[in-house]
Amino acid sequence: MAGMNAKADKISDLTINRLSVYLRCLHELWAEGARTISSQGLADRFNLNSAQIRKDLAYFGEFGVRGLGYNIEELRNHLIKILGLDRPHNVGVLGAGNLGNALANYDGFSPGKFSVVALFDTDPGKIGRRLPSGVEVHNMDEFASIASELAIDIVAIAVPARVAEAALDAVVDAGIKAVLNFAPIRLQGRPGVKINHVDLLVSLEGLSHFLSIRPMLAHASAASDE
Amino acid sequence: MAGMNAKADKISDLTINRLSVYLRCLHELWAEGARTISSQGLADRFNLNSAQIRKDLAYFGEFGVRGLGYNIEELRNHLIKILGLDRPHNVGVLGAGNLGNALANYDGFSPGKFSVVALFDTDPGKIGRRLPSGVEVHNMDEFASIASELAIDIVAIAVPARVAEAALDAVVDAGIKAVLNFAPIRLQGRPGVKINHVDLLVSLEGLSHFLSIRPMLAHASAASDE
Repeated sequence: MAGMNAKADKISDLTINRLSVYLRCLHELWAEGARTISSQGLADRFNLNSAQIRKDLAYFGEFGVRGLGYNIEELRNHLIKILGLDRPHNVGVLGAGNLGNALANYDGFSPGKFSVVALFDTDPGKIGRRLPSGVEVHNMDEFASIASELAIDIVAIAVPARVAEAALDAVVDAGIKAVLNFAPIRLQGRPGVKINHVDLLVSLEGLSHFLSIRPMLAHASAASDE
Repeated sequence: MAGMNAKADKISDLTINRLSVYLRCLHELWAEGARTISSQGLADRFNLNSAQIRKDLAYFGEFGVRGLGYNIEELRNHLIKILGLDRPHNVGVLGAGNLGNALANYDGFSPGKFSVVALFDTDPGKIGRRLPSGVEVHNMDEFASIASELAIDIVAIAVPARVAEAALDAVVDAGIKAVLNFAPIRLQGRPGVKINHVDLLVSLEGLSHFLSIRPMLAHASAASDE
């Protein structure tokens, strides 16, 4: 375990993102009754890159069984450990607006792995409100005590950009080490704190870039495009 | 222009993402009155990598002025063109739930660049509703005609996973070529259609990985950590 983790701490964010995708694919295969899968089979089925899969998984030692591929159960358990999913995580959401509510109701989290256990806001009209799921909107002033009481270890920041830095200060002061930021601002890094950004504008600008070059691409491959 | 775009069509998604970040930084510097910036200055100010900046921007020809750095106005205009932001984009949102409403009210889009102009849903209780912004919730059955009428060129999919593929079918049938998917599912690729995924579970699992290796990291650098 210690050896694995000592190695794991050098894994890039991009690799971790891919491992997360592989794990979801393995869950799906397992649910369908598959018990082994080759890197090529995994790639074909989920539009992935087989060479990349072999490279990513080789990093953690050899799981492949020659001729059979990977043992799905073994690989799945290993990825669960690497991704820190062998224990549940309690998520607090800062900002009880539309986005905060959407996060609290989001159906894409692994059941039992990530639970939104509290929302926080500064608006007296929202504080005390309870979502259908039973999750309550708390006063942001009480963040530290409630985060401790509810064992929150991950915080999602879903407040307007202008108050996001102040929100992050409160979160870091309370000892939280993992933050998912939705505010459209590059938050200052804090020592020992991991901040992942969900940047919708970057995603949209990638699409507008694609639309702007599409006429050129279509022209270059007119024969195959229609 | 044609030459630039012919070249631009080979730019990787990751590079495009970074260009989008650079553009936002340049907007901020410009608003503060700066007119030139070096790659090192840009890196220091926004926690970026100066070598990466030089590499990314060299790709589009040399903008740097020796001793002064980049001309902010020139670089900004160039990035705006590359990112397809020299014309506005109309966004349609599929799914008028919490996430759809959050997107329609999101304050992080460049004003005038991306406008959510319509929501679509299949729930009769939601159809016909109008957001404070004036944006209306339309019947999903009318997607093709309304998308054409409102000149929608980008669609955000914010429906539950089980209906996301069907939603994508309708979008692609209507001739939309750019999709931002929020549903927690790997959608099948469609020829000529760009799908960007906003995958919250991947982001969260990156955080849980960090939390799982943090005790190891803290142990390795105990002297500097506290």
